[in-house]
Amino acid sequence: MTPPFFPPLLPRRFPLQGEESMTVVPSVGQAATALRMVAADAVQKAKSGHPGMPMGMAEIAVALWRADGGFVRHNPANPAWANRDRVVVSNGHGSMLLYAVLHLAGYDLSAEDLGQFRQLHSRTPGHPEVDVTPGVETTTGPLGQGVANAVGMALAERLLAETFNRPGHAVIDHHTYVLLGDGCLMEGISHEVCSLAGTLGLGKLICLYDDNGISIDGHVEGWFSDDTPGRFRAYGWQVIEAVDGHDVEALGRALADARAETQRPTLICCKTVIGQGSPNKAGTHDVHGAPLGDAEIAAMRVALDWPHAPFSVPDAARAVFDARTSGAAAESAWQEAFAAYRSAYPELAAELERRLSGALPADFDALAQATLDALDQAGDIASRKASQMVIGRLAPVVPEMLGGSADLTGSNLTDWPQVARINDGPAGRYLSAGVREFGLAAIFNGMTLHGGFIPFAGTFLVFSDYERNAIRMAALMKRRVIHVLTHDSIGLGEDGPTHQPVEHAAALRLIPNLDVWRPCDGFETATAWICALKKADGPSALLLSRQNLPAQTRTPAQKAAVARGGYVLTDREGAQAVILASGSEVGLALAAQALLDAEGIKVRVVSVPNLGLFLAQPAAERDAVLPRGLPRLAVEAGHTDPWWKVVGLEGDVVGMTTFGESAPAPVLFKHFGFTAEAVAQRLRALLV
Amino acid sequence: MTPPFFPPLLPRRFPLQGEESMTVVPSVGQAATALRMVAADAVQKAKSGHPGMPMGMAEIAVALWRADGGFVRHNPANPAWANRDRVVVSNGHGSMLLYAVLHLAGYDLSAEDLGQFRQLHSRTPGHPEVDVTPGVETTTGPLGQGVANAVGMALAERLLAETFNRPGHAVIDHHTYVLLGDGCLMEGISHEVCSLAGTLGLGKLICLYDDNGISIDGHVEGWFSDDTPGRFRAYGWQVIEAVDGHDVEALGRALADARAETQRPTLICCKTVIGQGSPNKAGTHDVHGAPLGDAEIAAMRVALDWPHAPFSVPDAARAVFDARTSGAAAESAWQEAFAAYRSAYPELAAELERRLSGALPADFDALAQATLDALDQAGDIASRKASQMVIGRLAPVVPEMLGGSADLTGSNLTDWPQVARINDGPAGRYLSAGVREFGLAAIFNGMTLHGGFIPFAGTFLVFSDYERNAIRMAALMKRRVIHVLTHDSIGLGEDGPTHQPVEHAAALRLIPNLDVWRPCDGFETATAWICALKKADGPSALLLSRQNLPAQTRTPAQKAAVARGGYVLTDREGAQAVILASGSEVGLALAAQALLDAEGIKVRVVSVPNLGLFLAQPAAERDAVLPRGLPRLAVEAGHTDPWWKVVGLEGDVVGMTTFGESAPAPVLFKHFGFTAEAVAQRLRALLV
Repeated sequence: MTPPFFPPLLPRRFPLQGEESMTVVPSVGQAATALRMVAADAVQKAKSGHPGMPMGMAEIAVALWRADGGFVRHNPANPAWANRDRVVVSNGHGSMLLYAVLHLAGYDLSAEDLGQFRQLHSRTPGHPEVDVTPGVETTTGPLGQGVANAVGMALAERLLAETFNRPGHAVIDHHTYVLLGDGCLMEGISHEVCSLAGTLGLGKLICLYDDNGISIDGHVEGWFSDDTPGRFRAYGWQVIEAVDGHDVEALGRALADARAETQRPTLICCKTVIGQGSPNKAGTHDVHGAPLGDAEIAAMRVALDWPHAPFSVPDAARAVFDARTSGAAAESAWQEAFAAYRSAYPELAAELERRLSGALPADFDALAQATLDALDQAGDIASRKASQMVIGRLAPVVPEMLGGSADLTGSNLTDWPQVARINDGPAGRYLSAGVREFGLAAIFNGMTLHGGFIPFAGTFLVFSDYERNAIRMAALMKRRVIHVLTHDSIGLGEDGPTHQPVEHAAALRLIPNLDVWRPCDGFETATAWICALKKADGPSALLLSRQNLPAQTRTPAQKAAVARGGYVLTDREGAQAVILASGSEVGLALAAQALLDAEGIKVRVVSVPNLGLFLAQPAAERDAVLPRGLPRLAVEAGHTDPWWKVVGLEGDVVGMTTFGESAPAPVLFKHFGFTAEAVAQRLRALLV
Repeated sequence: MTPPFFPPLLPRRFPLQGEESMTVVPSVGQAATALRMVAADAVQKAKSGHPGMPMGMAEIAVALWRADGGFVRHNPANPAWANRDRVVVSNGHGSMLLYAVLHLAGYDLSAEDLGQFRQLHSRTPGHPEVDVTPGVETTTGPLGQGVANAVGMALAERLLAETFNRPGHAVIDHHTYVLLGDGCLMEGISHEVCSLAGTLGLGKLICLYDDNGISIDGHVEGWFSDDTPGRFRAYGWQVIEAVDGHDVEALGRALADARAETQRPTLICCKTVIGQGSPNKAGTHDVHGAPLGDAEIAAMRVALDWPHAPFSVPDAARAVFDARTSGAAAESAWQEAFAAYRSAYPELAAELERRLSGALPADFDALAQATLDALDQAGDIASRKASQMVIGRLAPVVPEMLGGSADLTGSNLTDWPQVARINDGPAGRYLSAGVREFGLAAIFNGMTLHGGFIPFAGTFLVFSDYERNAIRMAALMKRRVIHVLTHDSIGLGEDGPTHQPVEHAAALRLIPNLDVWRPCDGFETATAWICALKKADGPSALLLSRQNLPAQTRTPAQKAAVARGGYVLTDREGAQAVILASGSEVGLALAAQALLDAEGIKVRVVSVPNLGLFLAQPAAERDAVLPRGLPRLAVEAGHTDPWWKVVGLEGDVVGMTTFGESAPAPVLFKHFGFTAEAVAQRLRALLV
């Protein structure tokens, strides 16, 4: 099944156009050479980077981005234009290709910026980073996630179009393009998201596969011999095979065919030579991830007839990409169209603008308060059920909320009455994503990158392992994705140790900029949800119980304190010690407190629904909750590690450091020492 | 591309044989019914579990395991028989199918055991767990990993056969069978491992796909419409399509065809009805993961003419699976063959037995000592380079060592001179696995489950996220897989925050039974490797630097102490404080110590290559290293969290709680406060 391998050759079919034009006749050949040389020079200057992909995909970039006859509709003066085409470089190690294009297209990215490639706080970091470089749509590098983000962007485009467009007013109407390589296609996540994209029929998603036959370990035949076209046809994609990736016109025809297909995503398989243009290294894995070396670059300058200094690009080449005029015109036309839309549908237009801005509905605070009040009265319920009640109250009136689950809807309780499934037809707001945790998380990252949605994704907490790097990427990119992670401890019960999280709450709390909530009842669950919805600059994880939890009563001050992550839930005059607990163990802490009351030991119970947030409070506030000098005992049915920084060497933690077992939950809590008496005993030991 | 959905029907084509035979004529129809009823009764008794899969795959199990005319060669009296066929239930929620078969086949698994399904410390936990239940080959439940384990088992079989078999002596010669469902096929890891299995041509791997069209969220068409046969043909598999999964004879023919194909793995697509046999719930997702209910089970008993009490199975049905006689005969024949092999090749036979026992070579301790001595003299090198030197010394003489990398061989330095690649032909010992981190880790889990190998897998530390759950599974299953995780901090440099681990060392340390090493130089790296190789009951992770690290000198006592996880590296008479550090920060701690020396502040430096191991030492030993009352400062270029339990509330940690940046490593260390002066300053602050 090995596809014919494209033999490494010296540069071939490559128009060696050296002339500098004074009249700025765009030179497509020079344009590709410019990309190659800029990439090679930048990597050489940085003494670090990946020249092979930019050199191999140069003509693909020309075909895609050329201002005249190309495909990407974008306005360099406004990278935030809502209806721009999205381009995702899923093989993000080829960042210099994107930077070179953005520079030449007229984005606010100077030759000096290119020269600062991979330097601290430059606008040209080693891999593309959204919000760092104008024109970069997502942060890529971890392979396979870029194409997943792109699936999310294409889905967001379709759902917004279904919701907001009106006859004669296609205000949302753009394509999503992806550059990807062998690495992305080997990664499992590419299966998850491309399979789903095929099922959903995302016709505006167009992927360009850099089929160069080389990965870091060498020629790929020994480890990657898929019939990739056959694989993608099996997903229901249009596949355009065996396109010469160095033939700009052939690529243009393929892209036109891709755009003509509206019901299926398209994969264009482009045969390329990695490092094309390097006289002695093209077609080898040496060129993948290391500078070419000064000598080879000099030879390349000669071979490509490129006498220009590094980062100096003749006007003729620059003109090929220069989208300042065409882009301004395109956006201007769209602005006119949007003005007409606004006239016809003022409320829709305002709502679309609000959605894209990321601002919550004007009445959100009132909705939130009503939700808090309702959940305060919800009684003893599982926190996953409380979460569903919150969703049921908010999602119908916060239309950017979009739910999904990795095939555990009935367990995660992430749906709500009357919600339509995206899987079933237009304008759905719930994605049954199949058993694809990682894919779902990365698709939802893409939806937030596109704008217009606050997605929330369900799975069991233990399977946060599968999607962990996508959660990390949301945190790194500062994107609002909410992870509803249910069955959050051994309280899951009989499914056993494969399904019982132990280390997961602790492990999630380690991810920078991820808010991790483990609420103890309905009110705390509502607070967690509302804080997550308001956290516009990062993801949140809600760790929720399978089993019922006792509802607590709170004063108004206590209610307000929940959002600060930790607070005194029940106090005792002259408390001798503090018990801290989260989630299902708050009720246990209270039971222990009651046992200790009976023997005259006075204990304060602190509920900590969000440990990170609590520790980020001003010291005075923390000290008020945890008076210095009082012994501290933490209780959580998870790994003990996060709590030692709170209880100190003199304190203690009732938690777990082993895997769970298969048994009914009450049996397990007893077996692992989560009983009121065991907690009380540990507290007594602290007072000796 | 939606495959025709098999409509849910009442039981069809299902031989309703109710007669009890006094002559014990095996009844194939009764056998399938027995599996259905045992599964339904066990789930009902446990009030928890998944009856749908066992009921839907009952005939598949009969076709596979029937003692007369079936395919699985196994001996219930000896589940450890080296040359048994392996069967992996990748859709592990269907555990009761396997338990029922093992019980009926004659394994040491009683009717009482079946009745204890999902109870604490029973031999029938919620999902299959290796080493808990005789006959269970691997722990499954997290979807997609079972088939990955099976790929590893099939690869292990092939490599052992290539190495040990001789003409006329095929002492290793067995098949690996897999049951899997839609869930496994949706998971990305199934792509990674099935693609690789196709490329490697694992002809003795046979997968039976339970194509029932149902997953937890309902009928799968809306989220899973792959042309699965086409997908697997694209991987280079033999695909046998559209087999009636309730027709034992048709299944038998398909299995025979699968065995006849020796160059390609085979996927048999079995059309089934989930919950087949349930009069009112068959073919619905209600039957997937919940008890049928007493009424439905009663109706099922009537419909299937099954008057027997729960877990009571007539002899005729039992006889179908009873493999005690045939299995004993099969193993006995193999033992005879092995005796002949031993006569002809005594050294090979002894070596194979040693390999399969998991015992290291007799001269391992001497090899280890020579390696330690050599690495002690290696000078200032990166710990990834030190690791490669260890591999280069040990792998040639410890033949069970088998390396691999997720397409980062030249960066992870996991190969060694003259090693042959598995990808390139027979008897290789190195797997270029492609960009498939999760798949690689789970395949290597399968190789250790099979026996005969100590595999080690390379990738960047940050991408341990991708394979995290497979590392967890190795820890849960107590299997010796070594993870070589290089580029272990911001010391990775220019690739930037997507590639720089921050929270990963801390997150890995949370996994129970995973040994995490972060060595500071060549000697510590060698010690880590040797401890990992000796840890027969669990995985290890070696966190290694990209950049050079200064070599330390040690007394013999210090050298011995490295294996205990933490020890005093350089002391000062009357030390006022302790600096603890790991890996690349040990050199930094020593530099800070020197700065403080100059101003008369006396500091002890403790190297902590394995924090978990150090904390597991007896208190007296820990106290000797960390005297009570001395202020403590920990330094690690990773998340601070793990260290607070060591330094306490009065101590401090120099670490990271944010993401990294793209820049040269020296710039980053300075930027993030990892300088001798910054460490010294934090130490001074502790003494105020």
